[in-house]
Amino acid sequence: MNGGPIIALDVMSGDAGAAEAIAAADIAAERYPRLHFLLFGQQDVIAPELARWPRLAARARVVHSPDTVTMHDKPSQALRRSKTTSMGMAIDAVKTGDANAAVSAGNTGALMAMALFGLRTMPGIDRPALAAALPTLKSESVMLDLGANTECDATNLVQFAVMGAAFARTVLGLERPRVALLNIGEEELKGTDEIRAAATVLKGAQLPMQFTGFVEGDKIGSGDVDVVVTDGFSGNIALKTAEGTSRLVTGLLGQAFRSSIWGKLGYFIARGALQSLRAHLDPNAHNGAVFLGLNGLVVKSHGSANARGLANAIGVAHDLVIDDVGRRIRDDLAGINMALARTIEPDAA
Amino acid sequence: MNGGPIIALDVMSGDAGAAEAIAAADIAAERYPRLHFLLFGQQDVIAPELARWPRLAARARVVHSPDTVTMHDKPSQALRRSKTTSMGMAIDAVKTGDANAAVSAGNTGALMAMALFGLRTMPGIDRPALAAALPTLKSESVMLDLGANTECDATNLVQFAVMGAAFARTVLGLERPRVALLNIGEEELKGTDEIRAAATVLKGAQLPMQFTGFVEGDKIGSGDVDVVVTDGFSGNIALKTAEGTSRLVTGLLGQAFRSSIWGKLGYFIARGALQSLRAHLDPNAHNGAVFLGLNGLVVKSHGSANARGLANAIGVAHDLVIDDVGRRIRDDLAGINMALARTIEPDAA
Repeated sequence: MNGGPIIALDVMSGDAGAAEAIAAADIAAERYPRLHFLLFGQQDVIAPELARWPRLAARARVVHSPDTVTMHDKPSQALRRSKTTSMGMAIDAVKTGDANAAVSAGNTGALMAMALFGLRTMPGIDRPALAAALPTLKSESVMLDLGANTECDATNLVQFAVMGAAFARTVLGLERPRVALLNIGEEELKGTDEIRAAATVLKGAQLPMQFTGFVEGDKIGSGDVDVVVTDGFSGNIALKTAEGTSRLVTGLLGQAFRSSIWGKLGYFIARGALQSLRAHLDPNAHNGAVFLGLNGLVVKSHGSANARGLANAIGVAHDLVIDDVGRRIRDDLAGINMALARTIEPDAA
Repeated sequence: MNGGPIIALDVMSGDAGAAEAIAAADIAAERYPRLHFLLFGQQDVIAPELARWPRLAARARVVHSPDTVTMHDKPSQALRRSKTTSMGMAIDAVKTGDANAAVSAGNTGALMAMALFGLRTMPGIDRPALAAALPTLKSESVMLDLGANTECDATNLVQFAVMGAAFARTVLGLERPRVALLNIGEEELKGTDEIRAAATVLKGAQLPMQFTGFVEGDKIGSGDVDVVVTDGFSGNIALKTAEGTSRLVTGLLGQAFRSSIWGKLGYFIARGALQSLRAHLDPNAHNGAVFLGLNGLVVKSHGSANARGLANAIGVAHDLVIDDVGRRIRDDLAGINMALARTIEPDAA
């Protein structure tokens, strides 16, 4: 291989199946001419699919893995099968340095457990966070943690802010992203002790970001901030609520168009214009959540993503490798950890 | 007055102004022929407006209040002016029994503080919760707490479930509402200790509801459950995120229609059909959040509600008075408190 990024792709664990995953890799191979792949999965499933894509085949090596993590496996069950599953072996390739990033569309809990256990957190990071880009009225914003940690203290939130800003600089291409803490009001007295303490640290820190204070949930979609920082419980609730509300409104829209002959005719005439709405809200267009804060990159694709969606997740992994997001986070942590030590009592751990 | 419900209306505190509030009262007076009003605010502002609505004037009495709580007042500042503000005096009328419910479109934090301080929690309720009906793909569901309590223990969540079910029986007209706890997964092991303990109690309790376990944020808008129970932090994040996402999608929809001549023409033809979408998502149609668990009813209207929206909030107050939702909650609490005592260590308080 020629020194370009190498992606360890878990071909087997997504709902869309191996054929779609191989097609996704070929789309990514076309987009990024220096990208190479290690394809983890059952040799006899992958080989005939790979034969259909000569461009990809020339830049990919199949690594046979006998076992697959299912969507129903508990993280603890999956962990025990790290060494034999396509998911576990893809992460191990990042650990050994055979690959620069792992990409999987499988079981989130299992992926998180395997990534944390296999790669461990970076020096200076207490807990990893799951981050992703979401559509806004203007373009996209980053939110984290989306569910890796149910409860978070102020130190965790500050570290998430550092990691989220580094991620936004790469995926949104911003010099100094605007970073805010998700809260139930914008006034300084609102929220939990943890959130207020995190705000105090971030306000005083010298970092390549603009800390703008607190934002409420209605600002996630407005595009007024670039990075929304929160604990994994609230972040998961917000992410899922946004998905559900988006389906609610588009569902009601569909009902409205179907409700009368004028609705149907209007839809028929406007359908080209409405494509931009569909494209902007398509989860495949924003696919690729990243576990930040580990000694290695792991990208989670939506379980139901199509080939184009999975190719976008591979693209996120590619960009993060090229930008060396891990180094960015390490550099920024040095500054923030001094501010943390001044402001927050260090944990016993 | 003839024995019908009496609403203490805070005429002054909403963004829409006194004239809109008086018009709202007249709409409600038309809908509910036995409804009467105490109108709290500045006599010289209310009198000329009231003169325009003879139907309302015949069933309303103005109570002069010299002072008004602004949207910028802190709860602590507002509390000190309870006795002289339209908001504080309206709540006091509920306390003294002069009115059956108070309705205000003012500052939420101030209203909450005044209501809690003035009316105190019901026997058997540790903390009040803010509840409201939200649009779903099918019709409406109830969510609570929407922001009264930042952190909640298992006992609080169980009591919220009881109160939310009683509220849903009234506002959604359901015999046995389906009640679920908001969580970051549907499996029993997900979430915080508090949520899992609350689920254990609710699973074992005999109540006029069906407890269906955990729901994720994407089910709030789907209409698969009738009551979504959560702490005030997550509930506020979910509510605001849903509002923001709804604005995001409808904003993108507007951009799409305006993006081309075909979009504009399609919109023109389908605009009648699209009214149903707008009507279903209109916050005015779902207006009226209720502080449940106090010795008296207090309904919060959106600050920006128009006359029709505020009339809907008055309608919620009317229905809750007629159904005697306080008695329902008291009855159900007896059953649940036995289950709580069996399962959860009682608080020192």
